[in-house]
Amino acid sequence: MGKIVCFPSLSTKQQQRILDAAPGYTLTVGKAREIDTSELKEAEIIVGWSPLVTEHALKENSPLKWVQVWSAGVDNLPFSDLEQKSILVTSANGVHAIPITEIILGMMLSHSRWLRQAMLHQQQAEWKSPGKPLPELHGKTAVIVGVGEIGSETARILKALGMKVIGVRRSGKDVPNVDQMYNMSGLHEALGQGDYVINILPLTDETHHIYNQTAFEHFKSGSCFVNVGRGPSVNTEALLGALDSGQIAFAALDVFEEEPLPANHPLWGKDNVLITPHIAGSTEQYTKRALDIFVQNLEAYIAGQTLPLNLVNYSHKY
Amino acid sequence: MGKIVCFPSLSTKQQQRILDAAPGYTLTVGKAREIDTSELKEAEIIVGWSPLVTEHALKENSPLKWVQVWSAGVDNLPFSDLEQKSILVTSANGVHAIPITEIILGMMLSHSRWLRQAMLHQQQAEWKSPGKPLPELHGKTAVIVGVGEIGSETARILKALGMKVIGVRRSGKDVPNVDQMYNMSGLHEALGQGDYVINILPLTDETHHIYNQTAFEHFKSGSCFVNVGRGPSVNTEALLGALDSGQIAFAALDVFEEEPLPANHPLWGKDNVLITPHIAGSTEQYTKRALDIFVQNLEAYIAGQTLPLNLVNYSHKY
Repeated sequence: MGKIVCFPSLSTKQQQRILDAAPGYTLTVGKAREIDTSELKEAEIIVGWSPLVTEHALKENSPLKWVQVWSAGVDNLPFSDLEQKSILVTSANGVHAIPITEIILGMMLSHSRWLRQAMLHQQQAEWKSPGKPLPELHGKTAVIVGVGEIGSETARILKALGMKVIGVRRSGKDVPNVDQMYNMSGLHEALGQGDYVINILPLTDETHHIYNQTAFEHFKSGSCFVNVGRGPSVNTEALLGALDSGQIAFAALDVFEEEPLPANHPLWGKDNVLITPHIAGSTEQYTKRALDIFVQNLEAYIAGQTLPLNLVNYSHKY
Repeated sequence: MGKIVCFPSLSTKQQQRILDAAPGYTLTVGKAREIDTSELKEAEIIVGWSPLVTEHALKENSPLKWVQVWSAGVDNLPFSDLEQKSILVTSANGVHAIPITEIILGMMLSHSRWLRQAMLHQQQAEWKSPGKPLPELHGKTAVIVGVGEIGSETARILKALGMKVIGVRRSGKDVPNVDQMYNMSGLHEALGQGDYVINILPLTDETHHIYNQTAFEHFKSGSCFVNVGRGPSVNTEALLGALDSGQIAFAALDVFEEEPLPANHPLWGKDNVLITPHIAGSTEQYTKRALDIFVQNLEAYIAGQTLPLNLVNYSHKY
């Protein structure tokens, strides 16, 4: 009898969805460190991730066949071990499309519509106007770097707002709502066209420090940078330089090379930077959407079919 | 030979558009107080508004036929005088559809996506998480009160974001992207359904203090209120009460009963209020869009046709 071990907390009804999809399997739900080690050693399917999985469930004779990670990013997994044992890995990619699109939009508008500046004046009870007409997103160009589930949803909304949308993705393949798509070799050319550059790339060897000094030099002067991807995709020193020179007029950052961002970090005090504490993906709908992905994969797994959603490529690492 | 007097500043090219549309007319451009009084007395068409128009151009024998106001709101005009002389009034209604939709969205997201709170923490270099999953606009209900040009555009975008959209308008007539429309007698019923209530009503006798204590009591508990319409539509004391009781969890206000909002006003210090200094309509595209409206009206005027855009009803006052 197969065993499913699940770290995310689920309601009874949610647990029943899993049991209904996998007749004959047992289900253990609990935090990784609270679950008996023997359960981990005997798990065929693990939902979620913990270093304890490496310790107990990747042993030579473990029955582990599949890990359904509960996050979209999988950059912290031991891919060589997983590949060697042919353990399938699926992510919760897609869960974030809606909340991250919403925060990207909020970040862009908090700057363009002067909300950030008005808030600072509000702290001083100061009625102070911008002194010039405010820019609109309408008619401007957004460059979305990393057009997967999230980027496609972001493109759809930005297009509805009347923006020109340029995309950059590994395959270079077109998607709806993106006016022009580049592959990664066209990154610098794409960056130069953006009034707004939005990074949603996953973290891989290729994307580490992909926003270096040369990249920032290709940005349009006075453009805005939004990072809701991964912190280490950005060389923070180079970003600080671009913010100081005015090459980048405004940056909204949810992720950082070091998290939490240290209290003495120069980014905190920049008046042209908006810092959020890695909350872009946070949503009250998370469990429901992630469970939808898992259950759909589980039904295919039980039927002996290929997992349809978010199967991670060991070498791409996403 | 007819005379056009125009208070908004226009480029030579923009002035030429007017002259091309009205062959044989002369055009004087300048601030109201800098234009010679005789020009005002002889004007057949005035673009913009100033108390000097009342003083000099509404006299018994003045040739004034039409005022193309340069704002969307016309609540400060002497309608009885204008009606008595049958002087046509058109507004720049529609110019604001895009910028105001953008600020409404920014205001909603600055709260729901925790940007406002994160900014306050940033002031203290404080990495602090919300502590619970953040809400999404997706799946929530927005009530748009006053569905004209702006409200229709707002409805389109909120619908694209996956919201349910309820509308309230004088006629009660359906418009695209509004799931359910009420007329003004259904206001309180509509208010009770909104996670977000967005006021875009013009100011008239009917809409003065339409958001009174009774109205706020009909709001859904914990809902958000956005006012980008007119300040006096809200009884500010009643709003403060609703904010204090938690009936309204968050208010984003661009307009106020008294503007500028006095430095000692209690709204400034509320941590569940976002105050912007009457900037919602501000846009770098203003002159272009308003001129588009005027020129289209002017072409009809010259051809002896009814003005097609934004003819103001003297008694409705919009």
